[in-house]
Amino acid sequence: MQIGILGSGMVGQTVGAKLVELGHDVVIGTRDPAKISEWLQQVGGSARAGSGAEAAAHGEIVVNATAGTASLDALNAAGAENLRGKILIDIANPLQFVDGKPTLTISNTDSLAEQIQRAFPDTRVVKTLNTLNAPLMVNPAALADGDHTIFVSGDDADAKAQVIDLLRDGFGWRNIVDLGDISTARGTEALLLIWVQLWGALGTPSFNFKIVQ
Amino acid sequence: MQIGILGSGMVGQTVGAKLVELGHDVVIGTRDPAKISEWLQQVGGSARAGSGAEAAAHGEIVVNATAGTASLDALNAAGAENLRGKILIDIANPLQFVDGKPTLTISNTDSLAEQIQRAFPDTRVVKTLNTLNAPLMVNPAALADGDHTIFVSGDDADAKAQVIDLLRDGFGWRNIVDLGDISTARGTEALLLIWVQLWGALGTPSFNFKIVQ
Repeated sequence: MQIGILGSGMVGQTVGAKLVELGHDVVIGTRDPAKISEWLQQVGGSARAGSGAEAAAHGEIVVNATAGTASLDALNAAGAENLRGKILIDIANPLQFVDGKPTLTISNTDSLAEQIQRAFPDTRVVKTLNTLNAPLMVNPAALADGDHTIFVSGDDADAKAQVIDLLRDGFGWRNIVDLGDISTARGTEALLLIWVQLWGALGTPSFNFKIVQ
Repeated sequence: MQIGILGSGMVGQTVGAKLVELGHDVVIGTRDPAKISEWLQQVGGSARAGSGAEAAAHGEIVVNATAGTASLDALNAAGAENLRGKILIDIANPLQFVDGKPTLTISNTDSLAEQIQRAFPDTRVVKTLNTLNAPLMVNPAALADGDHTIFVSGDDADAKAQVIDLLRDGFGWRNIVDLGDISTARGTEALLLIWVQLWGALGTPSFNFKIVQ
């Protein structure tokens, strides 16, 4: 499948490398191609760099792996026409640090995912993978034999089903909870507050939430 | 130990009954003693009803089991002089529903626990037990043999140590994470957003978060 990735940081590179490994045809959008030349050599395959607009135009599925505080700008630069009708997997979190404390720029009564969905009504936004660190996103088995949970939010049932297939069959997630419509991203984005605190308390970002029933 | 409980709803009754069972001397503060007359008969022991001020004055430890949106009023009515120097276990969440969606009245850059700590600087506030439903608070073994997580936040190390002792030796918690100072209650109070969503998605409130490492 043709997949475009917006954002060439740790998340974009990690998810992109896994998608190449799975045989997908990946264009990673970046404003700084030199930054990822080494990454492109490592992942091999068909992966190549382009502008955000080129990555979005290329993708049947587009991944938002930009910083949450810059996501709307990045998506606008990529262009609504290049995102129309497509699934957008939104991994970004609107997180910043204020006085050393994790703080969300959007929260409680709104979420980044909802803002993106409102700004791009013809794109099918699915929020997921934003609640854990990049290596675990694409390799849940690296922690506790994969016995932990990933969440999915979105308004479009077909888009969610396709993303859940990718999470399960591509990345190896077994415990996937569909929280409901895109507004449930308020819950998963808000997890970032305790996620950052847990990183401090546990001394490692290699952990995840498991929903125990 | 003498323990005062503010709030005679489900949380106050459930935690109070467990504390009586553990042999503590409990006064439950309520504006409506008739509401808990049946509860008092059931739990037996030394438990009795009183005003909020009487419950607070009685307690060496005081439990805030009021609705989060009414907690500051209830604590002011109980009286700063009755709370001075004491440990206040804050279980409340500043949760309300707006357009059917869970919404916090305080969040992100502040928390109810911090507001309480600022309003009662001579009281040692410890936030805990606010991230799961009442029956599981005092009986974690009822779910997955107790293999799930409870969080603790507070500025006073000795107060946190005493509360952790109660959680472990009294209630049976094995997996207790000290997140840090009282501002980390922002993280656990924000969990309520996804907690309500999970209740809907799973069809039961009988679940909890486990931090998997």
